[in-house]
Amino acid sequence: MAALKNAEALIPRFKFEKLLNQDQAGRRIVLQGTIDSEPALLLAERAAFDSDESRLSTLSNSLSHIQNLGDNDIYRWYMAHSGVGEGQPADLKINLIYPCTEQHLKKYRAQAVRHVTETPHVYRDHVRPYMKTKRDQGRLNWVFNILDGRTEQEDVLFRSPHSTTTEDERYLLLPDLNWDRKTLGGLHLLALVERRDIWSLRDLKKKHVAWLKRIVADIASTVSRLYSIDADMLKCYVHYQPTYYHFHIHIVHVSLEAGATQAVGKALSLDNIISQLATMAGDQEAGMDNVDLSFTLGEASELWTDVFLPLKEKRLQ
Amino acid sequence: MAALKNAEALIPRFKFEKLLNQDQAGRRIVLQGTIDSEPALLLAERAAFDSDESRLSTLSNSLSHIQNLGDNDIYRWYMAHSGVGEGQPADLKINLIYPCTEQHLKKYRAQAVRHVTETPHVYRDHVRPYMKTKRDQGRLNWVFNILDGRTEQEDVLFRSPHSTTTEDERYLLLPDLNWDRKTLGGLHLLALVERRDIWSLRDLKKKHVAWLKRIVADIASTVSRLYSIDADMLKCYVHYQPTYYHFHIHIVHVSLEAGATQAVGKALSLDNIISQLATMAGDQEAGMDNVDLSFTLGEASELWTDVFLPLKEKRLQ
Repeated sequence: MAALKNAEALIPRFKFEKLLNQDQAGRRIVLQGTIDSEPALLLAERAAFDSDESRLSTLSNSLSHIQNLGDNDIYRWYMAHSGVGEGQPADLKINLIYPCTEQHLKKYRAQAVRHVTETPHVYRDHVRPYMKTKRDQGRLNWVFNILDGRTEQEDVLFRSPHSTTTEDERYLLLPDLNWDRKTLGGLHLLALVERRDIWSLRDLKKKHVAWLKRIVADIASTVSRLYSIDADMLKCYVHYQPTYYHFHIHIVHVSLEAGATQAVGKALSLDNIISQLATMAGDQEAGMDNVDLSFTLGEASELWTDVFLPLKEKRLQ
Repeated sequence: MAALKNAEALIPRFKFEKLLNQDQAGRRIVLQGTIDSEPALLLAERAAFDSDESRLSTLSNSLSHIQNLGDNDIYRWYMAHSGVGEGQPADLKINLIYPCTEQHLKKYRAQAVRHVTETPHVYRDHVRPYMKTKRDQGRLNWVFNILDGRTEQEDVLFRSPHSTTTEDERYLLLPDLNWDRKTLGGLHLLALVERRDIWSLRDLKKKHVAWLKRIVADIASTVSRLYSIDADMLKCYVHYQPTYYHFHIHIVHVSLEAGATQAVGKALSLDNIISQLATMAGDQEAGMDNVDLSFTLGEASELWTDVFLPLKEKRLQ
């Protein structure tokens, strides 16, 4: 008991010297300091919310110093204090969607996730036709509008010069929606290729290896020039399944906090795909359509409900 | 101004119905409810810490209700309130390391990260010898102690039955240190193979494909039996570079919050490696030692300072 009391008494004696690190989206800080002139580290981390029903039911009433930061239609965002918070900086971010629809509930509801393996056979017979349906529904119009220069041209950060780049090798760079467009450590760009015959990494073949190597090198030198950062502080990955079926590459700063979007089961290193193609058996037409690919799918996704669940239950083969 | 005032007034009128979701390690909650009988969503998220020096210097004094949860040698952990927090649950987790050493500072200091490509040549001439040094230094004694049944046997969750499994195919399962051993959605296990000739995924060859498929299937059925979860709610990955050079597999629940440890540049899907080996050119001895592998390295790591930085600066080749 004496030892525990001592442990508690140590904290107020901590003398701050410097901020050593900040991570988990700023929700963890590591402070370097001393206690009685001896070196000490204090790590402070925001705790999980208490998920007790009675707590949650009174949460909105227990907030104080609610400050509205902005609103757009049914979306509003705020900073607030979880308690009295006199003289303290706000410790909560609040978003309110009101009135919300069933779509919003679906989007935010906890969703079970499944791990599936897409064989070449499943890809050819089920997933490729699904991709075609999505493309035929006009889901790519926004991409083609950008490629053709009709919309969002003010967002285009770079476009391969048409005078010196052959048609098949052109791409353009856009900021990802999640990047604030200024914090270098959070840099996140998208490269959209101009050619329209590559729907996803499944269309990459051995014959594309030289082109892919050139595009990766060109992206690295272009982005490092545009933002004055070393090329080896960038990494490139692609998603499978991607959100839309036009081949695009994610380029992020290596120090960008890795989350679900960079995780195994969602993202693959572009360098490693190139290397996989280079060492693959077969002629120049051999490619990623011949390999098993494993990834995760939300149970609410159409690919799960319409393809992988029926396959699992043998209603489809 | 009137609109902003209205926006602030909405929050206390939110009537809680149910907890829709909890993510970001419990630091974001999504509440479903109503305002004036119309559906509404309230998302509450812990905010980043204010990194202002004057705030940080008074942080340790501004905490209240500090509760020591445990301590081990120089490590102590606590829950605490960031403000007065009367009647509120604790909103901060605190760790204190005191007295700390230069090693602790190095570990927690913000570290720049580099993205490197390890070619087969670099692997053979520099990285493999580095791995050998680490193995020769006895860094794997703890692994061998577990495999040989000398230590940590109480932690072994499963061991391939020696009566029915050939020597080359055996493995054992341990909980990962980061798993609390009870929250199913955060399940994180390690599979250690018993054979000692595979130091990392670099040693995997085409001839191992059938064995790897069997081990993946066996892990899936064993873990799903041990924890009563569907096998397609698990995913397996390996690290490259790994922390220690004895081949081991990470098994996680698909809903485990993905962080740096699952990210592109650190982790590779085991299924995809197997598929890469299966479609690789060459005979049964062809393997992952023949491919380029790209990954990220902290600037403080020995592989960066002793191998990849000298290579970049042409002090090594």
